[in-house]
Amino acid sequence: MKASVSLDDVRTLIEKEDLENLKVTLSELQPTDIAELFSAIPEEDQLTIFNVLPQELTAESFDYFDLNTQKNLIEEFHQEQLVDILNRMSPDDRTALFEELPSPEVTRLLILLSPAERKVALNLLGFPESSIGRLMTPDYVAVKPHWTIQFVLDYIRRVGHNSETLNVIYVVDDGGFLIDDIKVREFLLASPSESVTDLMDNKFEVLNAFDDQEVAVAAFRKLNRVALPVIDSKGLLVGIVTVDDVLDVAEEEDTEDIQKLGAVEALQEPYLDVPVFTMFKKRGSWLVVLFLSEMLTATAMGFFEGEIAKAVVLALFVPLIISSGGNSGSQAATLIIRAMALGEVTLKDWWKVMRREIISGLLLGGTLAIIGFLRVTIWSLFTNMYGPHPYLVALTVAFSLIGVVLWGTLAGSMLPLFLRRLGLDPATSSAPFVATLVDVTGLVIYFTIAMAVMQGTML
Amino acid sequence: MKASVSLDDVRTLIEKEDLENLKVTLSELQPTDIAELFSAIPEEDQLTIFNVLPQELTAESFDYFDLNTQKNLIEEFHQEQLVDILNRMSPDDRTALFEELPSPEVTRLLILLSPAERKVALNLLGFPESSIGRLMTPDYVAVKPHWTIQFVLDYIRRVGHNSETLNVIYVVDDGGFLIDDIKVREFLLASPSESVTDLMDNKFEVLNAFDDQEVAVAAFRKLNRVALPVIDSKGLLVGIVTVDDVLDVAEEEDTEDIQKLGAVEALQEPYLDVPVFTMFKKRGSWLVVLFLSEMLTATAMGFFEGEIAKAVVLALFVPLIISSGGNSGSQAATLIIRAMALGEVTLKDWWKVMRREIISGLLLGGTLAIIGFLRVTIWSLFTNMYGPHPYLVALTVAFSLIGVVLWGTLAGSMLPLFLRRLGLDPATSSAPFVATLVDVTGLVIYFTIAMAVMQGTML
Repeated sequence: MKASVSLDDVRTLIEKEDLENLKVTLSELQPTDIAELFSAIPEEDQLTIFNVLPQELTAESFDYFDLNTQKNLIEEFHQEQLVDILNRMSPDDRTALFEELPSPEVTRLLILLSPAERKVALNLLGFPESSIGRLMTPDYVAVKPHWTIQFVLDYIRRVGHNSETLNVIYVVDDGGFLIDDIKVREFLLASPSESVTDLMDNKFEVLNAFDDQEVAVAAFRKLNRVALPVIDSKGLLVGIVTVDDVLDVAEEEDTEDIQKLGAVEALQEPYLDVPVFTMFKKRGSWLVVLFLSEMLTATAMGFFEGEIAKAVVLALFVPLIISSGGNSGSQAATLIIRAMALGEVTLKDWWKVMRREIISGLLLGGTLAIIGFLRVTIWSLFTNMYGPHPYLVALTVAFSLIGVVLWGTLAGSMLPLFLRRLGLDPATSSAPFVATLVDVTGLVIYFTIAMAVMQGTML
Repeated sequence: MKASVSLDDVRTLIEKEDLENLKVTLSELQPTDIAELFSAIPEEDQLTIFNVLPQELTAESFDYFDLNTQKNLIEEFHQEQLVDILNRMSPDDRTALFEELPSPEVTRLLILLSPAERKVALNLLGFPESSIGRLMTPDYVAVKPHWTIQFVLDYIRRVGHNSETLNVIYVVDDGGFLIDDIKVREFLLASPSESVTDLMDNKFEVLNAFDDQEVAVAAFRKLNRVALPVIDSKGLLVGIVTVDDVLDVAEEEDTEDIQKLGAVEALQEPYLDVPVFTMFKKRGSWLVVLFLSEMLTATAMGFFEGEIAKAVVLALFVPLIISSGGNSGSQAATLIIRAMALGEVTLKDWWKVMRREIISGLLLGGTLAIIGFLRVTIWSLFTNMYGPHPYLVALTVAFSLIGVVLWGTLAGSMLPLFLRRLGLDPATSSAPFVATLVDVTGLVIYFTIAMAVMQGTML
């Protein structure tokens, strides 16, 4: 089973400062376990522990460290160590680290790279932020079509040490243009005397280095691959993206979408790592925007102050009516935003969506209207709370619910599509944002219906 | 680039019923493209098109079809074709299909499998639903430690045709117990005369077949692997899980979490594929629950009917106050639910979370209180709307905002932890659910503060 060393054992050794045994113990761990361990070690001890790591584990473990640990160690490393680790990191993880550092710091570190590694790093950094170019690694194996399988296997044995994945081998022509991708299994299963051409089917999927990383996530979801080749605008093979990096990107994107849906600016870091004041700013900015918009409800209600004074009973149902609109709007917005993120719904589906939401809105509003009507009429048998005309109150509540819920589902479903049309992120139309929008209009719907129903009797 | 056939070309051929050219065109497509095409073909035409697919593409394309297409074709296949496709499907995709069919149908299909495939299928179905056992495939290559590299390469060439991935080779002892996993690159890079033992480091990570698929997602996120071995309760190697299947599970889980956050029961199917009435039920059930709970706001406001009649101005701020509590609660709930899903926050962090949320709640509530206070006092210079004591109104609004926002952040952050403690899914404490909870208590907070501040003047 797993390495028999527990993280607790390691922590005990660290506390006892037993570096000899710590060294032995650490050498039995996997780089990912070491990374997990480091995230729990206080920053001031990290360098000491890092220095007892066996040399062959340092670079790979460093790849897996979280960003805070990486930044802390980079500050504490002496020059030689920094040069060693930076040059041995895998280029995609190094790019991810560079992206998070201020640019003077990046320049300082770039100088420490060997000319070959510096070329790789500058190349990757030349692509726009969150483009596929920044996600890819230039470490892959490319072969020529006329090579024999035996020659390829020998070639892999010679040059493959550096490549991020050997699961797929890429075939390029003499100009460096990608002409096929072949799973390494094909090479293993083929007879050594065949040539690469015999394995080729000239079918392959590619990513474009300048596309957004979201495109890569969608492609991997659709294609079930472990790696995809990346080409530049001229069609030249420039790198590959592996599925493990895409899993991380997909997770980050879903987290961002979820946080936006909850009306929080994307945190970028784990909840417990975000300083409270940063958290306050990320939540406060949206909360203030929502608060200022919601102030319109006070204005709207101000218009109906006279009606409320005449029929206080109207005020009692305000929270019920507007929250029903808000809830149905949140539901619709959430469904559409997720469906758009997964590519299930696109702009051209707007009419299909609208038709479905009109039907849903009427069904949902109708259901709540029946419950609301029954509630008011049945209660009125036992209490005088609803005044002399309980049926008028019940009718007002019922009609308002149909109107407000229908409006909520329509606003919630159309707003994300509208934002996308404007080139904005649909997830910005968060549930609270839709709820706020629906609150103000919901009040107007409610009081307008009340005036129509109660004119001449209660109002 | 991509195969030069466009889906539009294919659709044109289908419309022209030009089966000859269609056959040629389809043979140039990838199985994933064929699957995408089929999802757009009307059900009644699917069998006709499927029958012109080249034999070598049928089973793999079928693996990629969406569930509705698979179910439709299975009903329409003649017996021989059904036997052929079922036996050639990959076991994990077949299990996914079986999971969605009613059990008499599964029994009927199991009989059609060859004895070997039936054993595999029954084995996979023996694991609990949404367990790792159902996600795994038993097609992998296992080797013995004393074999030479050359022997392994020859062995792979002989038996590897069926395996889902050849990227990792598993080493088992004579009892079938897993003792190591080795990337296929190691075999490619090693000299053919070395033995497997020379490549072994006895470090490996495993999944347990009975664990939930969420565990697999977390493991792949942490470990950056393309495949992980699965053992049963005795430690025997029973299968492997590949990262592409995990990418799908992760997507489904995030979708479920997002839909629950929006107070919708998980849809299970793409938005546009869910029948409107099913959608109505999935949304309606939650909406009714929320509506019934929200009815408590009418009850709560009923208690304060006398106060509202005396100071109608109090009613004007009801939506503003309760929505601010709801929004801050939604934010907190969203952050904590996502952090728990990613394993960043666990039950034992409850006190850390609470401390952070008390500070956040006070800061956020304080900010809104200042804005609210200024709004009422400045407005009151120009209007008589707030009655003879605008400062008392402003104070009531400000204190209530602090109380309600603090309560919202606390309820929103603690409810997911509390649900997890009860063994329930934290995502059930959706934003609308928290908002509803906070609405009722928010009203009580607001009117209680109003009575304290305004006693003897306006009330």
